[in-house]
Order: sequence, then structure tokens, then C-alpha cells
Amino acid sequence: MSQSIAANPDRLLPADPGTRSIARALLERVEDLPIISPHGHVDASVIERNTPFPDPAALLVSPDHYVTRLIHSSGVALDQLRPQAGAQAGDAEAASPDSRTVWREFCKSWPLFEGTASGYWLRNQFDSVFGLQHEISADNADATYDAISAKLQEPGFRPRQLFKDFNIEVLATTDDPLDDLASHKAIAQDPIFHGRVLPTFRPDAYLSPANPAWSANVDRLIAAAGDGVTGYAGYITALENRRRYFVDHGAVSADHGVRTPATLKLDAADAAGLFERARSGQATAQDREDFEAHMMYQMARMSVEDGLVMTIHPGSFRNHHTATFNTYGADTGHDIPFAINYTEAIRPVLQDFGTAKDFHLVLFTMDETVYSRELAPLAGFYPAVYLGAPWWFLDAPDAMLRFRSAVTETAGFSRSSGFIDDTRAFCSIPARHDTSRRIEASFLARLVAEHRVSEDRAHELIVDLVDASPRRVFKL
Amino acid sequence: MSQSIAANPDRLLPADPGTRSIARALLERVEDLPIISPHGHVDASVIERNTPFPDPAALLVSPDHYVTRLIHSSGVALDQLRPQAGAQAGDAEAASPDSRTVWREFCKSWPLFEGTASGYWLRNQFDSVFGLQHEISADNADATYDAISAKLQEPGFRPRQLFKDFNIEVLATTDDPLDDLASHKAIAQDPIFHGRVLPTFRPDAYLSPANPAWSANVDRLIAAAGDGVTGYAGYITALENRRRYFVDHGAVSADHGVRTPATLKLDAADAAGLFERARSGQATAQDREDFEAHMMYQMARMSVEDGLVMTIHPGSFRNHHTATFNTYGADTGHDIPFAINYTEAIRPVLQDFGTAKDFHLVLFTMDETVYSRELAPLAGFYPAVYLGAPWWFLDAPDAMLRFRSAVTETAGFSRSSGFIDDTRAFCSIPARHDTSRRIEASFLARLVAEHRVSEDRAHELIVDLVDASPRRVFKL
Amino acid sequence: MSQSIAANPDRLLPADPGTRSIARALLERVEDLPIISPHGHVDASVIERNTPFPDPAALLVSPDHYVTRLIHSSGVALDQLRPQAGAQAGDAEAASPDSRTVWREFCKSWPLFEGTASGYWLRNQFDSVFGLQHEISADNADATYDAISAKLQEPGFRPRQLFKDFNIEVLATTDDPLDDLASHKAIAQDPIFHGRVLPTFRPDAYLSPANPAWSANVDRLIAAAGDGVTGYAGYITALENRRRYFVDHGAVSADHGVRTPATLKLDAADAAGLFERARSGQATAQDREDFEAHMMYQMARMSVEDGLVMTIHPGSFRNHHTATFNTYGADTGHDIPFAINYTEAIRPVLQDFGTAKDFHLVLFTMDETVYSRELAPLAGFYPAVYLGAPWWFLDAPDAMLRFRSAVTETAGFSRSSGFIDDTRAFCSIPARHDTSRRIEASFLARLVAEHRVSEDRAHELIVDLVDASPRRVFKL
Repeated sequence: MSQSIAANPDRLLPADPGTRSIARALLERVEDLPIISPHGHVDASVIERNTPFPDPAALLVSPDHYVTRLIHSSGVALDQLRPQAGAQAGDAEAASPDSRTVWREFCKSWPLFEGTASGYWLRNQFDSVFGLQHEISADNADATYDAISAKLQEPGFRPRQLFKDFNIEVLATTDDPLDDLASHKAIAQDPIFHGRVLPTFRPDAYLSPANPAWSANVDRLIAAAGDGVTGYAGYITALENRRRYFVDHGAVSADHGVRTPATLKLDAADAAGLFERARSGQATAQDREDFEAHMMYQMARMSVEDGLVMTIHPGSFRNHHTATFNTYGADTGHDIPFAINYTEAIRPVLQDFGTAKDFHLVLFTMDETVYSRELAPLAGFYPAVYLGAPWWFLDAPDAMLRFRSAVTETAGFSRSSGFIDDTRAFCSIPARHDTSRRIEASFLARLVAEHRVSEDRAHELIVDLVDASPRRVFKL
Repeated sequence: MSQSIAANPDRLLPADPGTRSIARALLERVEDLPIISPHGHVDASVIERNTPFPDPAALLVSPDHYVTRLIHSSGVALDQLRPQAGAQAGDAEAASPDSRTVWREFCKSWPLFEGTASGYWLRNQFDSVFGLQHEISADNADATYDAISAKLQEPGFRPRQLFKDFNIEVLATTDDPLDDLASHKAIAQDPIFHGRVLPTFRPDAYLSPANPAWSANVDRLIAAAGDGVTGYAGYITALENRRRYFVDHGAVSADHGVRTPATLKLDAADAAGLFERARSGQATAQDREDFEAHMMYQMARMSVEDGLVMTIHPGSFRNHHTATFNTYGADTGHDIPFAINYTEAIRPVLQDFGTAKDFHLVLFTMDETVYSRELAPLAGFYPAVYLGAPWWFLDAPDAMLRFRSAVTETAGFSRSSGFIDDTRAFCSIPARHDTSRRIEASFLARLVAEHRVSEDRAHELIVDLVDASPRRVFKL
Repeated sequence: MSQSIAANPDRLLPADPGTRSIARALLERVEDLPIISPHGHVDASVIERNTPFPDPAALLVSPDHYVTRLIHSSGVALDQLRPQAGAQAGDAEAASPDSRTVWREFCKSWPLFEGTASGYWLRNQFDSVFGLQHEISADNADATYDAISAKLQEPGFRPRQLFKDFNIEVLATTDDPLDDLASHKAIAQDPIFHGRVLPTFRPDAYLSPANPAWSANVDRLIAAAGDGVTGYAGYITALENRRRYFVDHGAVSADHGVRTPATLKLDAADAAGLFERARSGQATAQDREDFEAHMMYQMARMSVEDGLVMTIHPGSFRNHHTATFNTYGADTGHDIPFAINYTEAIRPVLQDFGTAKDFHLVLFTMDETVYSRELAPLAGFYPAVYLGAPWWFLDAPDAMLRFRSAVTETAGFSRSSGFIDDTRAFCSIPARHDTSRRIEASFLARLVAEHRVSEDRAHELIVDLVDASPRRVFKL
């Protein structure tokens, strides 16, 4: 294309000329603010080691389940797009496609991405990160592969330089509770790198007895941090210790990817009983659910005590297609949302901690129906509750506008978490934050055009949404 | 502010200039029509006694849970905003904050309300009712307190004069079945006051055995109106008698605030059995639910017989935060909606009465998902069913537009209840009706601009929606 | 009216002038493309016999439950609008209203249809099919009845000529598995009629033991096509045989109108056990549900084998008002949607067939909440899954825009089924497809105006959506 639509300064802004002009002015206020990314999945070692990114396909296609899923839906087998599960661990039996072949498949499939969030982010990267002059296509697959490969070898494309060029101020990672956080430590102590890379405590695999690895994980957890105590008491102690370790290494939040938002308060004896039954394989399905719900309550209790912001990401049926999971592992594009409820499920936590001083509980959803029905009313009363930004499938222009429309009239602007990019695709971070800022500007511009918010206040609000909100909510 | 956005004649109208101009013309048709308010919570004695409103905080902040909840969410304790539960009953132990202090807290919190429905109504009142020249703020809290206080002492700010100035024609209150309706009688007999103030029969506390006061309430009910009959038969007789009393005093509707919309037809012997079990404390949770569902069926049956319009407001988890409820009582900002279904729940009533002559059943929801899925299809077939207007958290510009978009294509315009302000905040009534009229104009203007409805028909439709619909649906 | 809004070339296009002009250009690309109708309820014999349509009321009002339901909701008894259930079968006891009286009632009720999808389609037919010069009204009921009646006698208004004039290329009907498809055969063999009229296999009445006629239907099925085998094996064989018969007569899809989207894989012995229990009246409600869910799995398995596209239309509570059903039969306006889930329900089928070669599974819903939450994520991974177009109550301008907004950002444009008119109202087919094309143009025009899709790509996309998608998805 002669000029990419990704380069249009008015991209994503509302079509009505008067509203667009208001939106432009709002956007100007926040375009150059630093990126605060309090939740995501970039690996800290990428920043620590600062090694060049491998190649276009390994950077932009294979690891991104947003991208491979849509190509897969068109009938391309995943083995054309990503390595099998064991490949990264060095399993010689596990197949791994050639990068250039993956890139050709991706270029051929590029038209599938029209209108999608992924398509927008990718086009934006091609334009503003890699400076491609033409829209990618099956015809220019080899040429664009070579062009991007060449860029990736330049010193300016090393992770640390990009971190700086992307104007990232804070980047949170997502980490196993037993991670030693060595990369985080190394980055923090580096005298010449000034970005903040913070760990996040993510204990799912240690809290859910339905996870086949749970009991082994618990063994390792207690051995590592149980202070010599065994059983349920040692388990609780170990979790508290590891959270403290994360706090000491800069963590500001604990993240929970759970099937449902159920929470449950049990007394210690009942909880210990469920724990033992689950450990010995005697627990019923209900026991396992109750124990996990109780542990979510415990996580809230610990957050009240140690100050870690608690974020909950529920409502996804993970690994929906077993055959794909068996061959390619988790996070391969077939986690499918379902209906959730927060009003009853989260109540045990809110009864006890909903007004607790400095407790921050950020609630996410992929079930849009809870926005106006449950989340905005909850966040509009409980000081602890914040509205998690639109997430995953909802992290897209129209979906973000639906979110603002659904929650603002009930909860205003002050109860939002700020934007969450939640990404493992490092180079997409600027495009994602840019999208969010444009949508905030678009929403506010409409309210100004409809004389619902004054233009002066809108200018204050957008700065608050983009910059102050994430700092405030995530205690940065 | 030099000019409040609340004074802008185009406020809330669509930004597109062509559509806005159509909307302006539509709005002109209905701006000066009288206010019909067939459901709300103003106390009739306020109109009867015509005493001045106490002070700005007691009028506009403390009793309004829309307002106190959002300030509370920012971390302000409720004891800074409203009296404890016993205070109004004269309990000397119950704390009550100083009004001026409440007002300062409110002014400081005013930015929280940007973009909310409450914020719009309040700004509109400040502008058009109290004539404030500047946006309220922490800085002018004392000055605005004094200015509004002074206004409230003027004879023009007595309730009856405001009733007239607000152009209210009909105002329905919400009343206990054993209320003697003395205030309503006095108002009706007053030769110099011409507004209609109608009672509404609200029997929740007498129908739900889950209510701890139910059995005592039933005792009082049977004693007062059971015609000497005891047990279930006396209970039914008493309800019929009290409904008749309300009809004789001008009531046009019976309102039901229920947890779910469940209805159930039982024969008299089974119902009497449940009644006795509930009275003696032997009922299970299921028994209690079944009995309440049966009583909703009975209420429909009685409405068919005595002509009271039946309105149902389901789907709220009342008093979600027990600690707040214990200290401050009900209606203090933590009633949280949840998912409901109407299709199966309301069927027993519709099977028997859905085509009954002159039976009007108005169904409300805070779960927006039922608009297009259940309510519009039901109202588009059953002559008894009317679409309740967007209510509570949904009573706001964007939410009202979503409602019209969700229901109109299936049910047209003729099946709407007309706007319901549902408010206990008397001075907000004009702002709320003004909002609704502007949104109806906005929605219709879009259909005209898209050549889906002719401009002439739109002018007829908006008059019907604002004026004829509530008269027709509520039999006024 | 001097000029009907139905004749406005910009009808349904967005109001913003810039966006409208983009939409106009997009619409021009597809306005003259032939109509592909891969799912609907027109009777093949109407085309075969080519007899004139009877009269305006019998053509446009009485058989159309979209139309009679809304008139009924205004208090008109159905016996003023449509024959009782037995009338068409010649039952002398069954009442049937006079056509001219029905038409008068319809004309009087015409204002009810403002803003509805039915109203738009009807106005469009009056304008472009029947050339009425004035909006219909109570005043001109007899005149419009006579005008349309006269048209219906003209040779140009015979079904085959209209089929040609409407530019229909493919029209699929919906047929009983034991139908001999004689009309389809006759049409296919007719040397002078070139339209394709394809049968669709619709086995609901043979798959659901909850249907009172199920066992008798199964008897007939096995007798006709069981190859002499009895019991469950004969039943499966007979279904396979009849599907093959349909394939041989041009069918491209099998359609399933089910209460829920539940699917279940049972082994043959368990399935046979349930079958026998259901046949002997011993099955529990759960047994019946399990058996039907298993048969949906079987239908998927057969589709994988014989290539028929599988379409599922779930989520309607059929015949909600028993008294109306008893007098007027099914499809009389009181089928009411309810909440469904696909994520868990459809999983057994997707586990085994979600990536099966050439298996096409088109999922429909009347519960809009599943669009973004479940359907777009499923269709964005599984090659088998396609997003069914907005259907029934959702087959309307705003609802279609909500659909595109909800699914596109996750699934793009390539996973859509193409428009489905699903109608038994033959003369409404052009209006319905015209509506759909205008809405596709409107949605794409907004994306272009917001620089989210380039104008060139949008021109390709709209041709794909209108023409290539239905051909590809329905294997035409």
C-alpha cells in the first residue's frame, strides 16, 4: 500500500468530524506519556539477556495464540505454524516448522485478520516498528521476512533499546511462585538500564487440586518455603513466604487465572481436611472446587496483609480441544470463555475485605454481560473493587467502547484499573497501548460532543485514565 | 463554570449535525408536556405537609444511595455521608453526620460523578432548579451549601410549588399495604392543590417468608384486614381487602420487588400447607421460594380481578455487604444485580393470564441480556406484557439507547411502559424525565436519519412514548 | 405518502455523511448480485406448481408469525388473523377468518410495526414488489387489498417469475426426512426453469423423544428406510439412508432446531438402551435429553461422512402459551428464546470433529451474549465452526450491527455463514437480503471511516460476505 492505514493519524477515532476533532485534542494529551504495563506475559530474561529476537515468525507468529488460532480456523494445521509441545524443551521427537515456511503461511493468511484486534496490532507494528513500506501479502512473504530479519539484527532492535524506544516505564511479568526472580534482580541492579521490570505472583498451579500437577507442586512449594512445617499449615506458610519474597523483589500484584470467580471462607480445620483429602486423591470434584474457592479467599486475606494487588481472570474453559492440547500444549488458541457470575461468587471475599484499607481487587471478565450487571455496581460501592480493563478477546476497539459504555454511567471513570496489555508479544505493546488511548479519546470525545462532560474535564480524565489510574490501582 | 454543560440546549443529543437537528425538533414536541411519574419513592407526606426541605445534604446527598455509594467506593466511610440506621427513628446511640460536613465531602467527591447518570441529574438540578452559577467543587462547598440553603427557605422551594413548577401531573408513591393513606387522602381532598399523588401497593414484606419479619407482618395483616378469618384464607382475604382499599384511594398499580421473577401456581390446599409450615418455622428454603412464587401468581390473579397494574422489579441481591446493612440499614448502595430469566419463570402467570382482558404486567430488569432475548419477544406476543423502562443502574443515556436498540426491532414502540423515574429524590424528577425525553428523541432521530421511520411518524411516536404510553399502560 | 422511505436509496445507511458515502459505494458492489438463500421455509411445491398467490392476507399476514404476534400483542385475538390449526387440513370445525377482514385488521395495526424488522420488510415489499403509491392505513385497507389482489393475478406475479425477478439463484427449503422430494425433482428436471431449489434435511421430529409423536415417527422412519433392520441399528441406518437420499436430490445441509445445543457421545450399547427405554415409555426426562444430545453427536458424525453442512438453531422455548398452541398450532408467535451456552454443550462434537476435513458446523443463536463470549472464540479456532448469521428476532438492522461488532474483532470476516433469510414469506426475500447487504455496507463503511480497514479491502470483503461466503460455507 502506498500509505498504510496504520499510519493515519486519525486511525480508530470516530468518523463524525466534530467528535473526531475533540478526540484528536484528547489524544494529544496522552500520546507521549510513558507506557505503564502492570500485567503481561513477557519473560523477564528477554530483557535481562537482551539477546536479539530470533526471526519474524518466532517473534510474531508461532508463540502468539491470537494469531495461530485464526490461521488454524481457516484449515491450516498447527504443525505449519508452531512447534509441538516438547520442541522447546529439546525433545528431538517434537516437530518444529521452518520459520520461513511459517512466515509464508502467515502472509498468505493475512487477509483473515482484517477487522480483528490482532490484525490492527500487527499492521501497526509493521508500520511503526519495522517500517515496512507495503502491506504484507503472499507475494512479498520472502521479502518481508528478509526485511524484518535484517531489522532484528540491528542493535536498535535489541529488547532493551526497544523497551526504551517504546517509552515503557513499568513492565510487569507473570511468574511462578517458586521462581527465584534472578532476571528481575539482575535488571533492578543494572546501573545502566532504568526501566522497571516487576514480577507478578501467579500461584494457580499451586491452588487448584483439579490440576494434575497440583500435589507435586505443593510438595515442591512446602519443601522450598514451608519453614519446615508440613501439611496445610506448611502450605499456607509457604505461600505467605513466597508472596513476601515477591514483594521484596518488587512485585505489586498477585494474579489468579481461575475457572470461576468462586470464593469461600472455611475455618482452618475444614480447609486442612479438604487439603489432606485432595493430597491423598480422595477429594470429590466438589471438594476440589471448595478448596480452590477457599484458597482464593486466603489469597485475598494475604493481599490485605502484604499489600499485593489481587487480580482475578476467570471464565475461560482452558484447552477446549484435547487433541490439540496433547500435541501442542497449553495457550494454543482454544481457551473458550463461558458465562460467569461475580455477585454471589465474590461475596465471601467482599463481606470480609471489601472495605479493608488499601486492599485492591481487580476483577476481569470475558463475559461482557457482567459489566453493567455486576462489575460496575460492585466497583461503584466497594472501595476494594476495581474494574479490570477489557481483556483477551475483548481487548479491541469496539469491545473497549462497549466496556466504557456499560460501566461508566454506574461507576464513573475512577474505578477503572487502567489498560492491561496482557501480552507475551513484546513488540505489540506500543500498538496495544496506542489502541487503548485512541479508544479512551473516542469515548470521551463523544461525551464531550453530547455535552455530557466538559472538554476541560475530559482532558483531565484522559490523563487520569492513561497514567494515574494504573499507578494508583497497582500501587506503582 | 461560565456556562454549565447542563444548560446546553443540545445536551445528550447525538453529535452528528443532521441527526441532532432532527432530534431537536422531536424534543420540542415533548419538552413542555407534563410529567407523568407512575412509579417512584417520594413520600406522600412531603407533599401533604409542604414543609421546606431541610438542607442541601439532607435533600441531595444523605438519602440518595446512588450518590453515597460512589463516594463510598472512593474510600469515604458511610458515617461521613449518612446517618446510621436508628438515627431517624430517634435512637440516641445512632450517629448522624453534620450536614455541612456531608456537603463538603460531597463537593470534594464531585469529580467522581463525571459520566454517571447521577452526575448528570445533579448538575442539571444545580443549574435549573437552584441556579448555581458555578460548577460545585471542594473550594466552593460552603458557598454552594449556603446558596442552596437560602433557596430552600424561599416559599418557591416548598414541595407543592416545586410540584407545580416541575409540571408534574401525576406522581405515584410506594406504600406499605397497611398504610392508611392519610396523606394521599388529604392531598386528594385539598381544594387548592391539583396534582395527583397516587399510592402504590407494595406487599413484598408480606409475601416473602425469607424476610425475618414476614410472620409478624402477616399477623398484623390478618388482624387488620382478614375479616376475622385466620390462616391462609384470612391472609388471602386480607391482601385482597388491602388492594381494594388502595384502589379506592386512587392506586393504579401494585409493585413487586422480588429476588427472582419466579411464579408458581399451587392449589389452595398446597399453598395453605406451605403457609402453615412457613408460619411455624418448619419451611425449607425451597418451600419459602415456592410460596413466594405462588404469591406472585396470586398477585397476578388479583390484578386481573381488581385492575391494578402489576409491576415486577427482580434481580437484585439486596444488602450485599452485611456489615454496612447492620449499621446503616437497607437501600444504602450495595444492592447488586445478577442474571435472571423471565422465559420460564414468568410462564405460569402468562399461561393463565397472558391474554386476560385489561391485565397489565410491566416487567423490569437490571440484566440487560433479557431485553432482546426474552422481554421483547414476550411483550411482542402477550397483550398483558409491557416492557418496563430501563431502571436503576440502567436509567442513564447510553443504557436507555441500548434498551431501545435491543427491543424495538422485535416489539416496536407500542409495548413500552413509558419512563419510570423510580426516585426518592424529588428535585431530580425533572432532570430524569428530561434525560429520558432527550434519549427518546435521539433514538428516533437516528431512525429518521437512516430512513427507517418517517419524520412525521417520529413526531407522533415521541408524543406517544412520553405522554400516551404511561397513561395507557398505567391506566391513568 | 408521496415517497416511501422504503424507496430512499440511502435507507439503513449510517447518518454521518462521510460514512454514508463510503457505504453507498460498498453497496453498489453487491446490490445486483444474485440472492443465495441456503436456509428458509418456502414450500418447494409453490415453485413447482407456480400457482398464483391466493390474496394479500393469505400471502402477507396470516402465515407470518412475525406479523400476527405483534398485532396479537395489541389485543387482537388470533382468530381475527389466522385460521385455527385444523382449517388447512380441511377440518370443518376449524374457524378461518375472511381474508379481507384480516387485511383490514392488519392495516389498522400497521403503526405497531414502526421500527421493527417486519415493518421494514413489509414497507419494502409494498414499494418495490407491489408498487403501492401510498403508505397503507386503516383508511385505504380495501383499496390496497384490491390493488395487491389485482397484481397477484398478473402473470408477472407467479412464483417462478418472481423467483427470476428477485434474482434468486439458490433457494433451500426445509423438509421432512421422509419427504419424497417430488417437487424438488420436478423443478430440477424442468428444462425451462433454471433456479436451484434445494431440499434440507430437518430430522427434529425423529430425534427428540420428548416429542409426543417421536415413537410413531421412528416407526415410519424404520419402516421406510431401515433396510429391514429394527431397533436402534435400523433407526441409525434409516437416518443415514434418508440423508443419502437428500444428498442425491441436491441437499447441501441438515438443519437442527433443538431446545439446547447439548451434544453427547455414547457408545452404541448405551445409546441402544436409551432408545429402547424411550420407545417403551420408560425413559426419564434425563434419558430423553441424553438421547437427543447423543443423536446430535450422531448427526455430526453423519455430516462428516456424507458432507451435509450441519446447522443448529437452539434456544427457543417453543409454544410458550399452551392455549394458543392448542387452538392455532405451532409457529404462531409465542416461541420465546432463553439463555444458552455453547462452550460446554457443543464440546463433545468439537472434540471429535472440530478439525475434521470438510465438516461445516454453522451455529446460530438468539441469545446475543454468546456472540463475543463463545461463538467468535469457537469459530476463530475450529475450522469446522461457522458463525450463523443473526436469526429470527435478531435478523434486523441494529441487531445485525451488534452481531458484526461482537464477533469481528475476534473472528474476522471469514468465519461467517453469510446471510440466512430463514423465511416462509417468499415475497419478503429480496427485502431481507437488501437489508442485510445495507447493514454489511454500513458496518464496513464505519471501519473504513475509522481507518481500520482500507477502502479497497472493504470492497473485496463485502463481495465475499454477500456472495462467496454462503457458497463456500454451504458448499454451493
